[in-house]
Amino acid sequence: MHPIINRRDLDFLLYELLDAEDLCRRPRFAEHDRATFDAVIDAALAIAAEKFLPHAAAVDAQEPEFDGAQVRILPAVREALDALREGGFMAVPFDAEDGGMQLPWLIHQACGALFSSANIGTAGYPLLTVGAANLLKAFGSEALKARYLRPMLEGRYFGTMCLSEPQAGSSLADIRTRAEPTDEGHYLITGSKMWISGGDHELAENIVHMVLAKIPGGPPGVKGISLFLVPRIRIEDDGSLGPRNDVALAGINHKMGYRGTVNTLLSLGEHGDCRGWLLGEPHEGLKAMFQMMNEARIGVGLGATMLGYAGYLHALEYARGRPQGRAITDRDPTSPMVPIIRHADVRRMLLTQKAYVEGALALVLYCSRLLDELHTCRDPAERDALHLLLELLTPVAKSWPSEFCLEANKLAIQVLGGYGYTRDYPVERLYRDNRLNAIHEGTHGIQGLDLLGRKVSMQGGRALALLSARVHETIAEAETSVQLSAHAAVLRESCHELADVTRRLVEATGRHPELGLANATLYLDAFGHVVVAWLWLRQALVALHAQADAGEADQDFYAGKLAACRFFFIYELPKARERLQLLARLDDTTLAMAEASF
Amino acid sequence: MHPIINRRDLDFLLYELLDAEDLCRRPRFAEHDRATFDAVIDAALAIAAEKFLPHAAAVDAQEPEFDGAQVRILPAVREALDALREGGFMAVPFDAEDGGMQLPWLIHQACGALFSSANIGTAGYPLLTVGAANLLKAFGSEALKARYLRPMLEGRYFGTMCLSEPQAGSSLADIRTRAEPTDEGHYLITGSKMWISGGDHELAENIVHMVLAKIPGGPPGVKGISLFLVPRIRIEDDGSLGPRNDVALAGINHKMGYRGTVNTLLSLGEHGDCRGWLLGEPHEGLKAMFQMMNEARIGVGLGATMLGYAGYLHALEYARGRPQGRAITDRDPTSPMVPIIRHADVRRMLLTQKAYVEGALALVLYCSRLLDELHTCRDPAERDALHLLLELLTPVAKSWPSEFCLEANKLAIQVLGGYGYTRDYPVERLYRDNRLNAIHEGTHGIQGLDLLGRKVSMQGGRALALLSARVHETIAEAETSVQLSAHAAVLRESCHELADVTRRLVEATGRHPELGLANATLYLDAFGHVVVAWLWLRQALVALHAQADAGEADQDFYAGKLAACRFFFIYELPKARERLQLLARLDDTTLAMAEASF
Repeated sequence: MHPIINRRDLDFLLYELLDAEDLCRRPRFAEHDRATFDAVIDAALAIAAEKFLPHAAAVDAQEPEFDGAQVRILPAVREALDALREGGFMAVPFDAEDGGMQLPWLIHQACGALFSSANIGTAGYPLLTVGAANLLKAFGSEALKARYLRPMLEGRYFGTMCLSEPQAGSSLADIRTRAEPTDEGHYLITGSKMWISGGDHELAENIVHMVLAKIPGGPPGVKGISLFLVPRIRIEDDGSLGPRNDVALAGINHKMGYRGTVNTLLSLGEHGDCRGWLLGEPHEGLKAMFQMMNEARIGVGLGATMLGYAGYLHALEYARGRPQGRAITDRDPTSPMVPIIRHADVRRMLLTQKAYVEGALALVLYCSRLLDELHTCRDPAERDALHLLLELLTPVAKSWPSEFCLEANKLAIQVLGGYGYTRDYPVERLYRDNRLNAIHEGTHGIQGLDLLGRKVSMQGGRALALLSARVHETIAEAETSVQLSAHAAVLRESCHELADVTRRLVEATGRHPELGLANATLYLDAFGHVVVAWLWLRQALVALHAQADAGEADQDFYAGKLAACRFFFIYELPKARERLQLLARLDDTTLAMAEASF
Repeated sequence: MHPIINRRDLDFLLYELLDAEDLCRRPRFAEHDRATFDAVIDAALAIAAEKFLPHAAAVDAQEPEFDGAQVRILPAVREALDALREGGFMAVPFDAEDGGMQLPWLIHQACGALFSSANIGTAGYPLLTVGAANLLKAFGSEALKARYLRPMLEGRYFGTMCLSEPQAGSSLADIRTRAEPTDEGHYLITGSKMWISGGDHELAENIVHMVLAKIPGGPPGVKGISLFLVPRIRIEDDGSLGPRNDVALAGINHKMGYRGTVNTLLSLGEHGDCRGWLLGEPHEGLKAMFQMMNEARIGVGLGATMLGYAGYLHALEYARGRPQGRAITDRDPTSPMVPIIRHADVRRMLLTQKAYVEGALALVLYCSRLLDELHTCRDPAERDALHLLLELLTPVAKSWPSEFCLEANKLAIQVLGGYGYTRDYPVERLYRDNRLNAIHEGTHGIQGLDLLGRKVSMQGGRALALLSARVHETIAEAETSVQLSAHAAVLRESCHELADVTRRLVEATGRHPELGLANATLYLDAFGHVVVAWLWLRQALVALHAQADAGEADQDFYAGKLAACRFFFIYELPKARERLQLLARLDDTTLAMAEASF
């Protein structure tokens, strides 16, 4: 059995760092307590271990294929998803009145973390379905919700997101899919949708596509995009399955990794009868989709995190069990070999992975808790603040894990050496899987532009000020600790540098947008390092306080948190500060390069 | 047709940067001139394009398999290798009297670069064969050379390197393969050899294994290792193929990439009759093998470089042809889309790749030219200096491309977005292939220990002083240039910092080896950045001088070199300086971490 999570770490993050139990004091979650949370997580872990993990390698080796009639997917995928739907895991965060468990998003994400760690490909289907159901819940008419929502929460219907088109990946302004209104309440959709995960399969009774399309006569660009619900199979008035809708599989994409999630090119309206139903207002589709996308982006960050996390746990297990070489100071070649975890370079690689994956998990779970706070907050000013914070942190929560937990996967391979490069061990698959995460749901570059071009400057920089206030609370607390005051001082300087560079870049962007935003991706990475450093300092504070009364095993655990924090501050944060210095130069090398000179 | 190389760049590196023609003034190469060099490179490029490239994707999808009787490999691999052997490309660097072309190693590497770029898996066989033939040439008895050398140079026999064993990967001291002397001149070998590339196949008439084994009664550890030639098929006195030797395929390793090169577990002497012939002196095997390994390591660096190079060329081609989005300042969504090469982030990714891959190619070709100088130098003092320089640069030439050209491959995928993640484009395969290079022929960590633990301190630091003198020559030259003096100043500071940190680390290692060497891998990366910065400054100097009289296309080319140099100095070198600051702290976080705290 391969490890899926360090459960002690998950408990630490949920209960000690993020005080998940405190959420139960809110009316929405008043029926729950830690016991319910733990029971749900236990059940998810059992399904992850028993149903998701065993076929993770098999579905990678034998990816979904179209046999001429239908998409064939390894039966184990369906069995795992059956177990998940029977366990009610599609409905975890939804309202009780809709058939949901009405649990915090944080707990939903904790469960999702376990499925993703065990088998990201199979976990892709529920992730998309929950996102689509959320969108339907928020923007669907009562009639649409009555037809589609409960079957989605029951896992009988799955969902997708249909944004990209072959000619328009990152550039949604240029989508060509059209939606012609009819007199019967629905629209007729025509177009092609590319990169559609879960776009066609027999894993569920139906597939509910969330489709972006343009209603003729609307404004050009993103302001003319509307959102439609397009079912694979239409639903009759009595809720039963009707005829097939005019949605056709046009191709399957064969990927480097993440192979369990079938990825498709869909053709809509080839026969002129693809029916779609408007969600929300005409031309307001992108805004609506972004609600789903923001949660999906944090979900991507979580997936990236867990791929890195799984790799770390494998590498750790291997390093503890593999004898090779001796201490540098041991000159006797006849002395027994030591496990490779004793070698400094292996320890450095393990500690780097730990710092990345546990830091990333803290980040995505922190954002998940913010979502819960936002959704249960009644004070408009506080709601606004929470919304801003989430807007600011979403590109970071999506991108930082995608970049640095991929790096963790790279190091996991290195710890295993030649074995890590073979398909006999899962670390190479995790690395391949994780390479997707910087691409989908808005590329790394797009996230950088979102952060620097929009998020840090919106409302006069208020989001960043809010974040900064939270960071400085932690700094103030850590400054009073003998063990952490040095880190606190470094974080204070780093925040100051970040604020200063942000100001310069925003100002430059006003004058010369191309120049100001040229290195937005580097800004994104550096910003993420500062945020994760903050969350490491928070983890260290919690660990330090808890250490006093801890038992022996917990002593080791808390010492690990303190060491990983120290590692992050000494080995990682300086990289961000160096990048901030670069950013402050407003260098134009990339802009000035003539295209013929590449 | 996919691009294999920027031929203008290769010519620049060979003739303008490294003055390959100057080698023809040495007696060994007196028969050659630029025309011969170009003709050989042209022929190699034709074979690479026509025979290697077309099956690169196919052999990845359909990797070598054992069918119960023999290893089956796609027929196109054999066809490509037939073309290569018929073109004489196994014999390029060897003595004319042995049947070689007696061309510089530099030109041999230039040809190898083309095969590797086109198809690294198929290119693995000749790389290994040339290495094994070199070893045979240097350490084989006349009788052994008479039997094996010419068939290897003709490409009729292929070669391998058999170092690792299942229980001993990086730790050669712990190999268990035994060699018992007999009265008939050969030894009887028993043991298992792991990770043997090209270990079993039907691509050649015979396979000549270079095997490390221990003669009973020898000293323990690496001092008791001897080197043996172990043929797959024994050779009769008349040179004809005799009976099979007792070398059996015990398994095939299934890798993430590099799949065209079959990788095997070999069992030697299962039936007590695996015959091997000693190369060199008993117990001197590791030293001998290192001659081959050093060339092989530079070869690995070259392979890593070319995988990154091929990825860059693909990404560049795609970025020029793919329309997507508009300029940030263009608010009109109805204006036409622009090719993505116009976007700053794409340009940054392309420029990063260019800086890495062209910098890496300069590094490995520079080392290749040093090898030619070493092999043709008659002055003992100069020989000694060249030898030291090469010893110092070999771990860098192996590792820096393995790390940073892999990063280039990662960026190439990102430029292509979702398409880059599919198997319809080669960039994901190149990324998978390149992940091997930090593992084989001594891992990244082993190279770091070699550099910091041995190379920089040998002969009182003389190797580093020799390198430093060469770097300072370049600095002095660049300081007189208005355009390059700022870079020169930065490089001077960086060298100073590197020297200072090296001194501290070497001193610390004397006191506390574990601590001094704990971050040797980070040192290796930083060292590499300084070396590559130097080679970029040299390239910039050449480009600057040549610009004056250049035609229009060359103006663009030279401007690209200057821009890439600038990019490297502004965006990359500061990373190394930050790492040197970290190294100077002699931080012990990784050593202090309790194993139970991971």
